[in-house]
Amino acid sequence: MNMLEILYHKRDGGKLSKEQIDFFVSQYTKGAIPDYQASALLMAIFFRDLDREETYWLTRAMMESGEILDLADIPGIKVDKHSTGGVGDKTTLIVGPLCASCGVPVAKMSGRGLGFTGGTVDKLEAIPGFQTTLSQERFRQVVRETGICVIGQSQGIAAADKKLYALRDVTATVDNKGLITASIMSKKLAAGSDGILLDVKCGQGAFMKNLEDARKLARAMVEIGKTAGKQTAAFVTDMSQPLGRAVGNASEVMEAIRTLRGQGPEDITLLAKTLAGYMVFMGGKASSHEEGMKKVEDQMKNGGAVRKLKEMILAQGGDGGVVEDFSLFPQPAFRAELKGEETGFVESIRADVIGSASQISGAGREKKEDAIDLSAGIYLQKKVGEPVEKGETLAVVFGNDREKLSLALEKARLAYDIAEKPVKAPELIKELIC
Amino acid sequence: MNMLEILYHKRDGGKLSKEQIDFFVSQYTKGAIPDYQASALLMAIFFRDLDREETYWLTRAMMESGEILDLADIPGIKVDKHSTGGVGDKTTLIVGPLCASCGVPVAKMSGRGLGFTGGTVDKLEAIPGFQTTLSQERFRQVVRETGICVIGQSQGIAAADKKLYALRDVTATVDNKGLITASIMSKKLAAGSDGILLDVKCGQGAFMKNLEDARKLARAMVEIGKTAGKQTAAFVTDMSQPLGRAVGNASEVMEAIRTLRGQGPEDITLLAKTLAGYMVFMGGKASSHEEGMKKVEDQMKNGGAVRKLKEMILAQGGDGGVVEDFSLFPQPAFRAELKGEETGFVESIRADVIGSASQISGAGREKKEDAIDLSAGIYLQKKVGEPVEKGETLAVVFGNDREKLSLALEKARLAYDIAEKPVKAPELIKELIC
Repeated sequence: MNMLEILYHKRDGGKLSKEQIDFFVSQYTKGAIPDYQASALLMAIFFRDLDREETYWLTRAMMESGEILDLADIPGIKVDKHSTGGVGDKTTLIVGPLCASCGVPVAKMSGRGLGFTGGTVDKLEAIPGFQTTLSQERFRQVVRETGICVIGQSQGIAAADKKLYALRDVTATVDNKGLITASIMSKKLAAGSDGILLDVKCGQGAFMKNLEDARKLARAMVEIGKTAGKQTAAFVTDMSQPLGRAVGNASEVMEAIRTLRGQGPEDITLLAKTLAGYMVFMGGKASSHEEGMKKVEDQMKNGGAVRKLKEMILAQGGDGGVVEDFSLFPQPAFRAELKGEETGFVESIRADVIGSASQISGAGREKKEDAIDLSAGIYLQKKVGEPVEKGETLAVVFGNDREKLSLALEKARLAYDIAEKPVKAPELIKELIC
Repeated sequence: MNMLEILYHKRDGGKLSKEQIDFFVSQYTKGAIPDYQASALLMAIFFRDLDREETYWLTRAMMESGEILDLADIPGIKVDKHSTGGVGDKTTLIVGPLCASCGVPVAKMSGRGLGFTGGTVDKLEAIPGFQTTLSQERFRQVVRETGICVIGQSQGIAAADKKLYALRDVTATVDNKGLITASIMSKKLAAGSDGILLDVKCGQGAFMKNLEDARKLARAMVEIGKTAGKQTAAFVTDMSQPLGRAVGNASEVMEAIRTLRGQGPEDITLLAKTLAGYMVFMGGKASSHEEGMKKVEDQMKNGGAVRKLKEMILAQGGDGGVVEDFSLFPQPAFRAELKGEETGFVESIRADVIGSASQISGAGREKKEDAIDLSAGIYLQKKVGEPVEKGETLAVVFGNDREKLSLALEKARLAYDIAEKPVKAPELIKELIC
């Protein structure tokens, strides 16, 4: 077998065999296939697509390219959650404690972020003292004792994906259903949970711009998960505007805490209840999705959810006081307000432009080595459908670099469209695929 | 401008601008764009194709990436010839002296070969003492004094093409019309002749397997040449079986000499007359193609053509005696005969399989560093349409390595198909595009 044959075969519309995929993944991971052949194959895959079987084989090969966790020593049905990403998506910070407070253990590894804001791990590091690097042993111990632990993605998980993702990122081969599916599912399958719930974002701030593409991606991932013998389901949810009101790192953690208390923005609250409710159902702690949502809601109301977050923070070395006292978070030195220039209703907020503004404010990285300003970000006073008066504040940008803030403010201005007539907010939960 | 934008643009069906193409070619040539991005673009081009303008811009950019020759100091209309390559194609060795003997100056740079046999330069080196590396000054002097000089391709010509071709070769992106056109035409335009005659091979032993594809490639190249202000024309010719009877290096030079004397195989004689006749017409030494062919035929008959080859050999330091005495060529130590296993007519001779057998015999390179056995090759006693008796010799393989020869013989056996009923030989000259 050689790589050139594989390239011709896929390029000319052939179906890759399991052996060809295994050969490619294993040889590429160990450096025996050069990047220039791998990128040519990725582009050929972009045009020819991968069918179900090819996607499954690729997922398996990537999963087997690294460490595979076994969480059998942690009692209960462990359910993992993955979001395909978007702007203002702090769901993990809310859904994790909600599930754990309902008795479903959460053993979660999350990524750092390149782009609009940091990833979940960066956000957690906005909590003073919080440790996202724990030994495997300590990780399992925290899950066993407090029911939840969130750490950084182990470098050993799906080694092929790391290398391939970095290559896709610079060769315009990120947005392909088969490749996205294999990338996500290889990591989820290797992470050892019993169930996987996927949150597939859809809309102009997400990879998948339209409902049909998002639905296809969701179906492909659910299929792969089930074929691999895991309980798997997916929600397709809206990302046509940012999720919640806070975009940034510390500010998203604060919004997560408010949401855990039942005082969060309407959209993120609904999404968190929907996802966590389903995970509680998957984890066997409710007999239906509805019952799961009800249980989750109770934990918001009775304080159980926010207590669980505090327990987790303490177990991971963080300052638990943040849960009551937001002044313990890194504070931005400067703020600037974006004022509305006309009276009407918010018609749209381009999520990708807000994301860019957030990055400019200092909340996101451009390059892997970049440091993040944990205090920086944007707060959206007005969301789609809400009325606005001329001169009223639409959004606030904040951070420690005054110059960056004025650039971020100008960027954020481009994101808002105001209509004269009332506008309906987009539907948040589009579909459940299971 | 950045490469990732260019990649997305082409991938998504956009047309590349002149600026984008110039940026890509210049940055890639100087190493500022990595191979993995270039190969992803090549694969995207494979799927999206290049239109006329993109192909022209790419050709220009590649031409301008290196040295551009000016042959204005050589009197007369210089006409260059290029063949897209095939098995047994020794046309340059025949067409060059034919043109020169008719008064059309030939200042030709040729390549070495990777594959079935050596390139023209390797073949010429089968002549003892023959120099294919001359200074620019000496090159021009030989053309002025003897009317013809054939040397190795200057390393400085179309620098981008060298790098891109090497990458295409290992990323399954060779066989695309726009890329082939730009690769060939960038070198031809940089080589400084006034006219360009293309011989586009068609059939199972060529890049272009069918007439329609060959015709399209020919049209694309003629268009580019004309747009660049050069007289350009193309013949589409058959490569469904090897050209002539000799395949190898020394053996092809011998066949060329026989053909220059008017004693060559029918097909190569017809092709050489057709091409050289057209070049004589382009070079202004005949008022029609027919008159050009007539002049060329006269030079075969009156000995002028073979005398011209001898002059060239002498001017380039070679042993002119080879023209009369073939024993001066490198001689193979061993020969083996392929015998017919049934009585009938040769139905087909797979050119690529004969090419492979020739390479196995030692006549071609597998890797750039490989040495060539100049004496090795295959001689086809029987060609398509010819009758054959059981036990009669179909072909002879020869060379200096007995083991390789028996492998080459087995390979060659696979190339021949024998039919019971008479078979018509394929039409050699398919079309003239001008």
